[in-house]
Amino acid sequence: MRLVIIGGVAAGLSAAARARRIDKSLEILVLEKGDAVSYGACGLPYYVAGRVGSLEELVVYTPEYFQRERNILVRTGTPAVAICHPKRQVALAGGEYVRYDRLVVATGARVDRTAIQGAEGPHVFTLQTPEEARRLKAYLERRRPKRAVILGAGYVGLEAAEALRGQGVSGITIFESGGGVLGRQDPWLTELVRQHLERFHIELRTQSRISAIEPDRVQDVPCEVVVLAAGLRPNVELAAEAEIELGRTGAIRVTERMETNLAGVYAAGDCAEAMHLVMGRPAWVPLGTTANKMGRVAGANAAGARERFAGVVGTSIVKACGLGMGLTGLSEAQARKEGFEPVVGRIEADDKPRYFGGRPATVELVVDARTRRLVGGAVIGEEGVAGRINVIAAAITARMRLEEFQQLDLAYSPPFAPAWDPLLVAAQQVSKLID
Amino acid sequence: MRLVIIGGVAAGLSAAARARRIDKSLEILVLEKGDAVSYGACGLPYYVAGRVGSLEELVVYTPEYFQRERNILVRTGTPAVAICHPKRQVALAGGEYVRYDRLVVATGARVDRTAIQGAEGPHVFTLQTPEEARRLKAYLERRRPKRAVILGAGYVGLEAAEALRGQGVSGITIFESGGGVLGRQDPWLTELVRQHLERFHIELRTQSRISAIEPDRVQDVPCEVVVLAAGLRPNVELAAEAEIELGRTGAIRVTERMETNLAGVYAAGDCAEAMHLVMGRPAWVPLGTTANKMGRVAGANAAGARERFAGVVGTSIVKACGLGMGLTGLSEAQARKEGFEPVVGRIEADDKPRYFGGRPATVELVVDARTRRLVGGAVIGEEGVAGRINVIAAAITARMRLEEFQQLDLAYSPPFAPAWDPLLVAAQQVSKLID
Repeated sequence: MRLVIIGGVAAGLSAAARARRIDKSLEILVLEKGDAVSYGACGLPYYVAGRVGSLEELVVYTPEYFQRERNILVRTGTPAVAICHPKRQVALAGGEYVRYDRLVVATGARVDRTAIQGAEGPHVFTLQTPEEARRLKAYLERRRPKRAVILGAGYVGLEAAEALRGQGVSGITIFESGGGVLGRQDPWLTELVRQHLERFHIELRTQSRISAIEPDRVQDVPCEVVVLAAGLRPNVELAAEAEIELGRTGAIRVTERMETNLAGVYAAGDCAEAMHLVMGRPAWVPLGTTANKMGRVAGANAAGARERFAGVVGTSIVKACGLGMGLTGLSEAQARKEGFEPVVGRIEADDKPRYFGGRPATVELVVDARTRRLVGGAVIGEEGVAGRINVIAAAITARMRLEEFQQLDLAYSPPFAPAWDPLLVAAQQVSKLID
Repeated sequence: MRLVIIGGVAAGLSAAARARRIDKSLEILVLEKGDAVSYGACGLPYYVAGRVGSLEELVVYTPEYFQRERNILVRTGTPAVAICHPKRQVALAGGEYVRYDRLVVATGARVDRTAIQGAEGPHVFTLQTPEEARRLKAYLERRRPKRAVILGAGYVGLEAAEALRGQGVSGITIFESGGGVLGRQDPWLTELVRQHLERFHIELRTQSRISAIEPDRVQDVPCEVVVLAAGLRPNVELAAEAEIELGRTGAIRVTERMETNLAGVYAAGDCAEAMHLVMGRPAWVPLGTTANKMGRVAGANAAGARERFAGVVGTSIVKACGLGMGLTGLSEAQARKEGFEPVVGRIEADDKPRYFGGRPATVELVVDARTRRLVGGAVIGEEGVAGRINVIAAAITARMRLEEFQQLDLAYSPPFAPAWDPLLVAAQQVSKLID
């Protein structure tokens, strides 16, 4: 019995490792088109910034480790060019065919450069792979650019801004085609982030769709380097050509067992959809943690177990220039669009007692007035951001009502939090508005 | 209509403030036996340590503030000596009587000195009130003691140890009458804390009940100062004499509306019981946050609203000598005693990626094998402790099952957490053991 996995980063290698744990005798082959596997892609901005000394530090496991310790064969530099499911074969670039009994498609996502003229220029970079990060860092060190443009105000764009500043780029402009940062149409959040970035001489321009990059400028902004941090698309061509069905999001449609429409073929990670537990339908939420979880389930099931991936609530977090921003569930606008009746409590409160160095944090809770259930939240601040957004994420997952959330028995001690945690203050605020 | 509240710290003033918000015309009188109201008692160890410059910083609101801004009369230095419910009167120390229509008993708790011979000595202190903290700090600054004994390895005892070290006390011994620290019979936790404290020259002796304090020693340990951080008892004498019923814990029995057995008389805070949501019965969990929440509900209902306090899951957190310790729900031993079938996953994992300065954290999850529900947890580490214990607390409150917890959509980004959060790694560990 042979399991073939296309893709050797988060989802692919999670699938491989989990499959091996379930079935000691399974033959497992991972095909990775790039040179590296099992790297922490989320660490690439920190490599560019110089905080991570070498790309090797980002590699969790090497192909040799997988071969030696897990009996998993990993072939790098090996792009799959076609899947022929009737023959249970994957065609490789050199003309070779690899037979499979079970297949996991974990082909990831990429930044689509084709939509922007000039995006292939030598001063244009993405932060997608170790190779590209290495190229960008070398460019920064050699050329010492002073002006940069970043396309996209999602988390990669904001992290890239911090990374470029860390490399001495003094003037940065971020163009965002949408109306807000971090994929949300939240004017308050966008304004808060804009003001924070301005203090670091980073300009944020929303509603600014860019169609061309010129050698020395983007629109009216002169620049010597451009980072593409928008236009992420799932790598689904291989799957689509093999008649693996895509969902309405454009990513591969999967069941909760990570099955595609083809028997024995699974998909996981950034190329696939995941159930959004608040929206109640599949969404495309390409994130490393989700990829790991989906990969784990795909690998288990491909190896004969019966596991399920329940889905996501859309949690994400980013730190840029000292400001932590955590989001989960739906924003007010998203909630309304999904048919909820959102009531929003948004407060600013100290994240710890003042006498313990407390600093202002903003907490937003979005509650559906009909069911009184939490459907979204945001936490912006310097400390405690991850913990607080995770509490909201857990509450949303549990379909917790406002009344229960408002009395959560949260930990209190001066080094950690004020006596009334900002989460509870925000809940009280919603409570006042909802009745 | 007059509401009288006995006690002017967390529960009492939360009740007063909430009652005022509900009913603008209510006459509200708060009787506080001490000199200060509305102080953050949890900050007292940090005042002793010198981290908080003055006791005034710990006072959230003054009596003048309450009078001026909230139309709430606060009388300090005014001990209540009796409640005569048939007459709806509270007797004060000077012979005065105060009439009430509604009464909230928020008399708090105290360290019982009577059980220990010599506990009234001039070198023996508690950390209960601003007055006592002031006395202790003055003593430390005047005498510059080098050797101290602390009775009790609960959170106050551990915070006191750190505070005394901050004041130059070089040798500290903590005597704990029970088998473990922080009120838990957890050998692993006690050992972990013991080893950590040893690095700071703080000795921890468990199973050591102390019945006498001598002027220059406790048992075989010479010392110049003693901190009493054990033997906390609810202040229920006033209530009991008025035939307010006590529960089996010895604290005042209340309904979820904070009603006592006497019509129109409520109790809240450290003098009262709270429903323990995991044990399913009332418990005595004297903590500031719980007191605030109970007070809020008591005040609302006393003012004519209809609110309820669902209960607690037993969350607490403490930091001592750089180590954060968060607990929630039940330990393995407690769970077994309560009739659960605990399966425990305990792991050590980095709290962030290594390349981002990740440090080892310990996470324990206690899951009931029959229902697969989370019933307890512990998080010990340097960073992210509050956030992670709060996620467990929220999951326990929501009666979340292991399967759901294991796939929680937690925030991931290198500055905050590893791709697999330690919480999820611990859940995977339970999962392996439970099947």
